[in-house]
Amino acid sequence: MGYVLHSAWRAGAPYRTRIGLALKGVDYATVPVDLIKGEQREPAYRALNPQGLTPALEIGGGEILTQSLAILEWLEETIPGPALLPTSPLDRARVRAMALIIACDIHPLNNTRIGRKLSRMGIDQAGILKWTQGWIADGFDALEPMVARHGRGFAFGETPTIADCCLIPQVYSANRYEVDLTPWPAIRAVNARALAHPAFQAAHPNQQPDAVAT
Amino acid sequence: MGYVLHSAWRAGAPYRTRIGLALKGVDYATVPVDLIKGEQREPAYRALNPQGLTPALEIGGGEILTQSLAILEWLEETIPGPALLPTSPLDRARVRAMALIIACDIHPLNNTRIGRKLSRMGIDQAGILKWTQGWIADGFDALEPMVARHGRGFAFGETPTIADCCLIPQVYSANRYEVDLTPWPAIRAVNARALAHPAFQAAHPNQQPDAVAT
Repeated sequence: MGYVLHSAWRAGAPYRTRIGLALKGVDYATVPVDLIKGEQREPAYRALNPQGLTPALEIGGGEILTQSLAILEWLEETIPGPALLPTSPLDRARVRAMALIIACDIHPLNNTRIGRKLSRMGIDQAGILKWTQGWIADGFDALEPMVARHGRGFAFGETPTIADCCLIPQVYSANRYEVDLTPWPAIRAVNARALAHPAFQAAHPNQQPDAVAT
Repeated sequence: MGYVLHSAWRAGAPYRTRIGLALKGVDYATVPVDLIKGEQREPAYRALNPQGLTPALEIGGGEILTQSLAILEWLEETIPGPALLPTSPLDRARVRAMALIIACDIHPLNNTRIGRKLSRMGIDQAGILKWTQGWIADGFDALEPMVARHGRGFAFGETPTIADCCLIPQVYSANRYEVDLTPWPAIRAVNARALAHPAFQAAHPNQQPDAVAT
């Protein structure tokens, strides 16, 4: 049977997952979750993912996977190629560290629920934007030398890895939040390369059924 | 040669790493990083981990690993036993999802640098405490049914996995921030079981060279 991805066009974690699915050549159906309406917090969605966050991937037999990095690792373990991780444990640790800088130390600080919470705490929109931009800059400062050292077209080596699955959506988010990418040439080069790759193109927010013209 | 862990006694990510090292029976030297003094932001530490976060693990040959989950996966790939992940890809995805709920959706929102930032944004100590407690409660609400379903003593099954490496430090943090654990009996049971396990005992903050009596 086919997979079903519960996705939101502009959100980072479903975007990562879509890139992984596209790189592995997996066919799947998309069910959009409207984050603005708050569908992710409604009982119908919480039945799929009690955490109320996107994505959720139905893989058949009633099984549902959550957490984008766990899904990417699962794709890597169940679908032989192309590889999303290098072969040596040391290199795999480097790729995972890059992915985790984004998945732990940038993105969770900036997603929709955090903006809502900060707003309820009395932080104005300018303050929230500055918060968002600051964590992206911090994380990109850490990533830039790693990409410069290990990248050969993509973030690590010559082919896409889970680091790119995380990096490209984070660059998309950085553009959305008007972060000036000048300080990070290695990241910009990888982003340009990835945006020309068919899998990254298929996974792009603008190609999703729930995309809204901006 | 031996490994060197740059660690901070009470911080969550080094604590996770220490549990993994202890479970795998790895000998290592500890170099404390004083987070209160801000040593993690000084050039000497940034030379090891440009991100300025703990832990950093020196593994010889000038190689340094960062990001606790990348280190745990690396330990799993380089040291045969005991296994920190189950064997089937589906079960591995479940364990990783549990670990990532903590590593992405709880802990990064509550660490030292976030408290400092919120304070600079004018949030008072009571507001920061409420923020911290809220994200822990959200994450534990998501974890509790997963642990209740899959746990058999530990978070997934009968032996410790990377989910427990993340969960036990997060429970420690919850206690530190005065979160009432009553709503999460499955998590409490795993925590009690883990605290009686020699590897978790060796990794405990109070057993570290830089521990301060509290």
